[in-house]
Amino acid sequence: GVIDLSYGNTGYSNGMTGNGVLMDLLDEPVPGVGTYEDFNTIDWVREKSKDRDRHREITSKSEQSTWALLHSISDAFSGWLLMLLIGLLSGALAGCIDISAHWLTDLKEGVCLSGFWFNHEHCCWGSNQTTFQERDKCPQWQSWAELLGGSSEGAAAYIVNYLMFMLCALLFSFLAVILVRAFAPYACGSGIPEIKTILSGFIIRGYLGKWTLIIKTITLVLAVSSGLSLGKEGPLVHVACCCANILCHLFTKYRQNEAKRREVLSAAAAVGVSVAFGAPIGGVLFSLEEVSYYFPLKTLWRSFFAALVAAFTLRSINPFGDSRLVLFYVEFHTPWHMVELVPFTLLGIFGGLWGALFIRANIAWCRRRKTTRLGHYPVLEVLVVTGITALLSFPNSYTRMSGSELISELFNDCSLLDSSQLCDYNSSENSNTLPDRPAGPGVYTALWQLALALFFKMLVTVVTFGMKVPSGLFIPSMAVGAIVGRLLGVAMEQMALNHHDWLIVKGWCSSGADCITPGLYAMVGAAACLGGVTRMTISLVVIMFELTGGLEYIVPLMAAIMTSKWVADALGREGIYEAHIRLNGYPFLETKEEYGHKTLAQDVMRPRQSDPLLVVLTQEGMSVGEIEGVIADTDYSGFPVVVSQESQRLVGFVLRRDLVISLDNARKRQDGVVSASLVFFLEHVPPQPFSGPPVVKLRGILDLSPFTVTDHTPMAIAVDIFRKLGLRQCLVTHNGRLLGIITKKDILKHMAQMSNRDPDSILFN
Amino acid sequence: GVIDLSYGNTGYSNGMTGNGVLMDLLDEPVPGVGTYEDFNTIDWVREKSKDRDRHREITSKSEQSTWALLHSISDAFSGWLLMLLIGLLSGALAGCIDISAHWLTDLKEGVCLSGFWFNHEHCCWGSNQTTFQERDKCPQWQSWAELLGGSSEGAAAYIVNYLMFMLCALLFSFLAVILVRAFAPYACGSGIPEIKTILSGFIIRGYLGKWTLIIKTITLVLAVSSGLSLGKEGPLVHVACCCANILCHLFTKYRQNEAKRREVLSAAAAVGVSVAFGAPIGGVLFSLEEVSYYFPLKTLWRSFFAALVAAFTLRSINPFGDSRLVLFYVEFHTPWHMVELVPFTLLGIFGGLWGALFIRANIAWCRRRKTTRLGHYPVLEVLVVTGITALLSFPNSYTRMSGSELISELFNDCSLLDSSQLCDYNSSENSNTLPDRPAGPGVYTALWQLALALFFKMLVTVVTFGMKVPSGLFIPSMAVGAIVGRLLGVAMEQMALNHHDWLIVKGWCSSGADCITPGLYAMVGAAACLGGVTRMTISLVVIMFELTGGLEYIVPLMAAIMTSKWVADALGREGIYEAHIRLNGYPFLETKEEYGHKTLAQDVMRPRQSDPLLVVLTQEGMSVGEIEGVIADTDYSGFPVVVSQESQRLVGFVLRRDLVISLDNARKRQDGVVSASLVFFLEHVPPQPFSGPPVVKLRGILDLSPFTVTDHTPMAIAVDIFRKLGLRQCLVTHNGRLLGIITKKDILKHMAQMSNRDPDSILFN
Repeated sequence: GVIDLSYGNTGYSNGMTGNGVLMDLLDEPVPGVGTYEDFNTIDWVREKSKDRDRHREITSKSEQSTWALLHSISDAFSGWLLMLLIGLLSGALAGCIDISAHWLTDLKEGVCLSGFWFNHEHCCWGSNQTTFQERDKCPQWQSWAELLGGSSEGAAAYIVNYLMFMLCALLFSFLAVILVRAFAPYACGSGIPEIKTILSGFIIRGYLGKWTLIIKTITLVLAVSSGLSLGKEGPLVHVACCCANILCHLFTKYRQNEAKRREVLSAAAAVGVSVAFGAPIGGVLFSLEEVSYYFPLKTLWRSFFAALVAAFTLRSINPFGDSRLVLFYVEFHTPWHMVELVPFTLLGIFGGLWGALFIRANIAWCRRRKTTRLGHYPVLEVLVVTGITALLSFPNSYTRMSGSELISELFNDCSLLDSSQLCDYNSSENSNTLPDRPAGPGVYTALWQLALALFFKMLVTVVTFGMKVPSGLFIPSMAVGAIVGRLLGVAMEQMALNHHDWLIVKGWCSSGADCITPGLYAMVGAAACLGGVTRMTISLVVIMFELTGGLEYIVPLMAAIMTSKWVADALGREGIYEAHIRLNGYPFLETKEEYGHKTLAQDVMRPRQSDPLLVVLTQEGMSVGEIEGVIADTDYSGFPVVVSQESQRLVGFVLRRDLVISLDNARKRQDGVVSASLVFFLEHVPPQPFSGPPVVKLRGILDLSPFTVTDHTPMAIAVDIFRKLGLRQCLVTHNGRLLGIITKKDILKHMAQMSNRDPDSILFN
Repeated sequence: GVIDLSYGNTGYSNGMTGNGVLMDLLDEPVPGVGTYEDFNTIDWVREKSKDRDRHREITSKSEQSTWALLHSISDAFSGWLLMLLIGLLSGALAGCIDISAHWLTDLKEGVCLSGFWFNHEHCCWGSNQTTFQERDKCPQWQSWAELLGGSSEGAAAYIVNYLMFMLCALLFSFLAVILVRAFAPYACGSGIPEIKTILSGFIIRGYLGKWTLIIKTITLVLAVSSGLSLGKEGPLVHVACCCANILCHLFTKYRQNEAKRREVLSAAAAVGVSVAFGAPIGGVLFSLEEVSYYFPLKTLWRSFFAALVAAFTLRSINPFGDSRLVLFYVEFHTPWHMVELVPFTLLGIFGGLWGALFIRANIAWCRRRKTTRLGHYPVLEVLVVTGITALLSFPNSYTRMSGSELISELFNDCSLLDSSQLCDYNSSENSNTLPDRPAGPGVYTALWQLALALFFKMLVTVVTFGMKVPSGLFIPSMAVGAIVGRLLGVAMEQMALNHHDWLIVKGWCSSGADCITPGLYAMVGAAACLGGVTRMTISLVVIMFELTGGLEYIVPLMAAIMTSKWVADALGREGIYEAHIRLNGYPFLETKEEYGHKTLAQDVMRPRQSDPLLVVLTQEGMSVGEIEGVIADTDYSGFPVVVSQESQRLVGFVLRRDLVISLDNARKRQDGVVSASLVFFLEHVPPQPFSGPPVVKLRGILDLSPFTVTDHTPMAIAVDIFRKLGLRQCLVTHNGRLLGIITKKDILKHMAQMSNRDPDSILFN
């Protein structure tokens, strides 16, 4: 009956002295409690609570001293400062990427004599030949054949250029894949599927780290320059998110809170698209529609700020040399007519079909890569694909140029001065007006080349997306659509021209007038294909609106994008990013689609009828050894705590990780804790016999407000709760008694089962 | 022991025949069950469940017959069709309103001789004097003095015009207020506070009905034409929502489901702003940021479609005669410079101050109207305010013109041909270039008039907003800001002109150049003031972006709007709409602001410590009479159902309205039900002695998945659950036993109490 003084300075003695004492050693935060393991889902509710507590503390302190007030103000503005930094850094990086990619791409064809660091355009700026087509003749710029063989004409020169082109392409892609494999395996791919998953509350350590940033930036430049059928838009989102994640470490508020950090990452996704297309509003809507999971209004406003800062940073770097903000600036001279909605809708149907087909083919190829021996040779795969791409793309000028150059060319509304092949129209005598334009031989050649380029792009993009190099698919998808659009546009134009008397043309296109803009068709086609692949809707319309700056072209775009989405959805519900998320087995709970089945919570919860009973802890009476036994015997991520085994009345929920850390900590730091020590989750520990070992009090790690639903709750409601509140798990009760548990993984498995897919494809919790 | 056959065809006998029989009469829907009373909050979860069930039924039937398949397809597209109709109707109505308001406004000054139905501009179209300033001399257009007195010059003519101006204004506003009072009291005000509340799940019957639509459309025209300091933008949102609500009745899907209808109303709010400003994207973002509560991505896309349709309908009606989509089209000739961000920020500060001040003054005035005798004479009030407004506004040309004309004039970037007073600059000899512009005497006169107009507008808007006529405050707020902006802009311009050597000007404004655009300052000032009053952020930027169409001016706008919001928020957290919602005591749970207090669910729930115990029903053993007694004794909206009074283990929740209707129905339609009849909420009614009265089975109206939280749940989490899931009530448990209940009203009262406001100001549940 004498208090053993050796326990004097531990929590134990405090716990023993009576009910009034609430503080004890274990109420101090144990390091590690409240953190997450890799490849686990965060608890949004807990993270937001943590942030609210932190905020409340700062606010209440701010009235005490000037220093605390300053701290509170700086805390309030740290979000804005962070956004500014993200905008500046991402804009700067995007500028560097653009400039280097431009230079390296040109390096495949030749070198600038006045300085090898100049790209073709810079090199020829001082030259007299100022038009676009003449720039090839600029004397400072030497093609490889001129440099090595001294001649720029003839078959030999062509072969030298061809070989150097392939050699450079292979070198660039080899460097890219080697760097990715050696330093940052996460730097491959577009990154958007993983970022979507991370934003939904998943943890992938290192995915947004500094090595990923550095390697992704370098290898993106190499991959784009190698001429592979890929774009830089998706990876730019990843780069911006890496910047954001790294900059988050400067501010405690964001460093320590997974939910707050995800708000910043949502804004960074907007920044990525903003710098990719020069479309800040479109970027914000892209983040809202496509990437983000939890997007409060405050984040909307901040991401808009960050997107603007980034766009203006990029513009002041001026990588394209024309101080345009947007990637493809277009201005059309003719308005469109209602009848043209028919071809626009056809483009939408094509976009939807191509989108659905592309997703299936790409997923099948990626699955094959995962499951067969193909996946063991990523470097070889990249080299082979690069080799074939370079081999086939050199002879055709439309595949030889980069994807974004191709799109610019196709969007182009031929003015009279334009000398590109696609604008080779037979102009009438008085070339001052803009009359009808019969196509010249150049146009027909261009059409054949474009048809070949289309075929080539469609095939090669399927195998390219998913290789172990950074690769986005905005540009390849848009290129496919733009080619089809331009082909259709020219066909329509020539039809309207040659058949003015046809009924469908008669009403609105008078003879001798130029009524149809093939460039607009290319734009609509590009939007339709991109829409079919990614299933973006409003953000795509707004991005395109920002490119043209005119509300007039929204209707054609919308008709095509809507048709494309409907057609693609009819053939397969998921976009490319969702398909890749599923392929990788990430635990992503889709927010867009309604859960349509009639099942109840009791059909999904564990344990099932045949399973052993639910493993629970009791709030008193269990020993440390018993609990450690439960932990060792099971692999659940958490355990419900009940009043008693008989009543099964729920008290709270405790996470496995917190429990393990706390018990370890108690054994280490609290003298005398042995396996026989009793564990209490009660607030007030009842008086113990003095002879026994000290008790361990774990009230601090107990979540006293676990979410519960009844067994009769329709799963549609339960799924809604999981989505909207961002839960990890939810307990199921019947008439007030604990019956089971539903985790996010259970829901995903159940959903997979309901749509006849393999439930074991969900890998993580 | 013999079954009384008189019960043969009632649910009772079915219920008695055994556990396997689930169907009984009461399983058929009782008319009225699942509907809501006026001034009550809907249960979003229940409404969405209902819609899911309906959808599932249609989908499952669609495989059975071609007819059902067609029905399923038409059901899927009915949302789009509805959006199309809303867009067309709202666009058409907005066009009519614009045209009539324009005509009536001109009617205050004179009449067209070639046809009284022409407005001034139409009247003079055929005339030779084509410039804007000369149009006053068009011979067909006769001012009232010319028509009545034969002369257009001199003091007598001025007085005749003055009197007719006042007379028309008084007549219009008298008609407006009389029509509102006689036919549709809900047609007054801007409507946005009420629409916000309705969208958050409140029911106000008739607020969006056909009478409100008709009267609001007519009286809006009258009110705008009367020259009162009000705009048509807010009321247009109300008009669009009325259209949407009425059109919803064409489709069962939307007619019968309060949640689905609110999705449509959210889209309609976007349509309203889209037609008000010709800014479809801005309209959608306005709905998202400012008005909507539940805004799924599907709605985002659909509202964009509706907003576009409406904007194009309006453009094809072409009410302004210039086929512009936007209300204020601006094009500026000079870019802005970084240094100018200082005056832009100053405008932001002014906007914030004015916003906060306006809200306080307006709310104080409205509260006075509610509480004193002032509120008893709404017609007189309107007449007095109109009279004073007309009296004071006639002499000053800037107040005589309508608000939107004033704003257009102030936004205007003076070109060389412009002959307005504000553009009276002393041009240099060679008037072909655009050199520096010293202000002429006209500009200084204009500045004085503008200063007086500012003072007048600031005062009169405070008393105008909230009167019993339709009134929006976008235009008055923007007018105030535009005046201040223009004043500052001209001041800056003249300073830069006269002090080229000053340090702050030197670097970027060379002597002789015109560096500053006063029109841009007006635009920035207008945005800042509107931002201060409404606290809109991103939507305001986008609306302004759509007006100018150039990304360059976003930065000044953003700087001003951000500053304005920060300043205004520092002086008072709520925007004008939230302030009016609170003034009216509507149950609106603000989604923008975090709940920052540390209270727990047990501090908010009823019953309190001192109150009597929670009123519960038991799942078996209570008689009809007992339950009716409970209903009569209390006024709660619902009752928890427990296993037994002793265990307090929760089974479900039943709504008062459903209970009353079902018991009435049972008494009427089920033979032999008397007060002593037992009520069962169980699924399987245990066999009853045959001698007793028939039992009433109410399992069907029992919500088996009520939301529960534990008593230790932080209120911040509870509030989050209420917001995100749209709950009406939530039950509170402790260790599995039912302890209390929290309703939305409890939360709002608690929040009012925590911020030291009167909790009894929350009037509705």
